[in-house]
Amino acid sequence: MTKLWNATPAGEPPGPTARTELRRHPERGSHDRAVIDAILDEAPICHVGFAGPGGQPYVVPTIHARVGDVLYLHGSPASRALRTLGAGVPACVTATILDGLVLARSAFNHSMNYRSVMVLGTMTPVEDPAEKDAAFRAIVEHVAAGRSLEARMPSPEESRKTLVVRIPVEEASAKLRTGPPKDDPKDMALPVWAGVLPLRLVALAPEPDPSLDLPLPVPPSVLGYGPARGSVGG
Amino acid sequence: MTKLWNATPAGEPPGPTARTELRRHPERGSHDRAVIDAILDEAPICHVGFAGPGGQPYVVPTIHARVGDVLYLHGSPASRALRTLGAGVPACVTATILDGLVLARSAFNHSMNYRSVMVLGTMTPVEDPAEKDAAFRAIVEHVAAGRSLEARMPSPEESRKTLVVRIPVEEASAKLRTGPPKDDPKDMALPVWAGVLPLRLVALAPEPDPSLDLPLPVPPSVLGYGPARGSVGG
Repeated sequence: MTKLWNATPAGEPPGPTARTELRRHPERGSHDRAVIDAILDEAPICHVGFAGPGGQPYVVPTIHARVGDVLYLHGSPASRALRTLGAGVPACVTATILDGLVLARSAFNHSMNYRSVMVLGTMTPVEDPAEKDAAFRAIVEHVAAGRSLEARMPSPEESRKTLVVRIPVEEASAKLRTGPPKDDPKDMALPVWAGVLPLRLVALAPEPDPSLDLPLPVPPSVLGYGPARGSVGG
Repeated sequence: MTKLWNATPAGEPPGPTARTELRRHPERGSHDRAVIDAILDEAPICHVGFAGPGGQPYVVPTIHARVGDVLYLHGSPASRALRTLGAGVPACVTATILDGLVLARSAFNHSMNYRSVMVLGTMTPVEDPAEKDAAFRAIVEHVAAGRSLEARMPSPEESRKTLVVRIPVEEASAKLRTGPPKDDPKDMALPVWAGVLPLRLVALAPEPDPSLDLPLPVPPSVLGYGPARGSVGG
C-alpha cells in the first residue's frame, strides 16, 4: 500500500525549501503556483493543523478561501482553535481532493489518485475592515460561486463577531497522483483485476429550507455548482 | 459564516476530557463510540497532524483503517512523516466527511453539513508481524471492502518495507452538523433562496488498467463500492 503523501517533517534544517521539499515520489510534486492555486480553489474545505498546550497537535476541518497570495480562514472569536491561530502560531493548511482508488494487482501497490496542497507558515489575524470584508466575500464565493451576490453580506456587528486569519501562500507545495496502478513486473500476469475507480464529489438535488415561504427559484450559485467540483448530470 | 469545527486547543489543562471537550456548538458533538467508529469507517482518507522541528505542524492526508479500538496508518519507512509518527510523537488524526453546503439567507449563517472525528494520542509503531498483517488487511478493506480477497497480499519483504503505526481510539470525539440553515429571525423574510446543497463522494465508471491483458470481470470490491460512500446509480 502506498500512502498518499510522504511529508517532510523531520531531520531537515528549517527553511522554506527544506520544509516543503518533495522527497518521496518527487515526480508527484509541484511548486507551480498555478497547480497549487487550482487545488486550493477547488477543494471545498481544508484541514488546518496547529499545536496546542504541551505540543499536542490539533487538526481541524474548516472552510478556506484564497485571494491572490493569501489564504483566509475564519471562525468565531469564541473558538479556541481560531483564537490560537489568531495569536500568530505556526500552522499547516492542507487541502486534499480525492480523485480515485488505485487498485493494483498487489495490495502493496494500492494507492489513491489525489491532488493535495500543503501551506506552511504563521497565521495572523486580519484587522483591516476592508481586507476582512474582502475575505468574507471570498469565503462565501469559495463555498458557492455567485453566492455573495445573493446572500445578505455581513453587518458590521457580524464582522466584529467573526475572527479572520490569514496565511501567505508562499511556503507551499502540491502533491498529486494520477493514472493507472503500477504493479511489479512479476505481478502483471496475476489474474487480478486492476484499475482505477474514479471518485467525484458531486452535488445532488438542492433541498430548499422548509421555512422558505417565498416561491424563490433555485439561484445561480446552486444551479451552477461546480463544474470543477462536479455535479450529477452537470 | 460558521466554521466547521471549533476545536479545543488552548487554555485548558491537559487531559482527555479537557482536550476533547466540545465547547462550541456542543449540540453538534458526540463522544459516542458508535458515531465515532461509523465516521472513521466511512471516511476514505484522514488527515494526520504532528509537529516537526521547531514546533512546525504538518498535516498530511493518508489512508487509515480502524480495527476495534485501534486506528492504523501506514507508509514507507523512507517517509519522514511516517518515521516521525513511528517515533512516538503526539498526533491528531482527523477524518471528515462533507455532506453538503448550508446556504443561509445571510452570509454569516452559511455553513457546511459534515461529520468529522478527531482522535488525539501518541502514535506507536506496530512491530508484531501478526498485528501488522491484520493492519494491512484492514487498510486494504478500508480502501475497498472485499479487496483483500482479490489482491495479492503483502509478502514478508513488502511487510518489512512498510511502516505501520497505531493510535488508540480513546481520546476521540465526533462533531457533525445536519439539517437546514438557521437564519436570524430578522432575515427570514429576505427574498433570498436558502437551503442545503447535498454533496456526495460517488464512484464513477471503473477504468481498467490499460495493461490488463486478461478478460477479467470488474470484481466485487469495485462493483459494490459504497454504499455508505455512495455510488452513481448504486
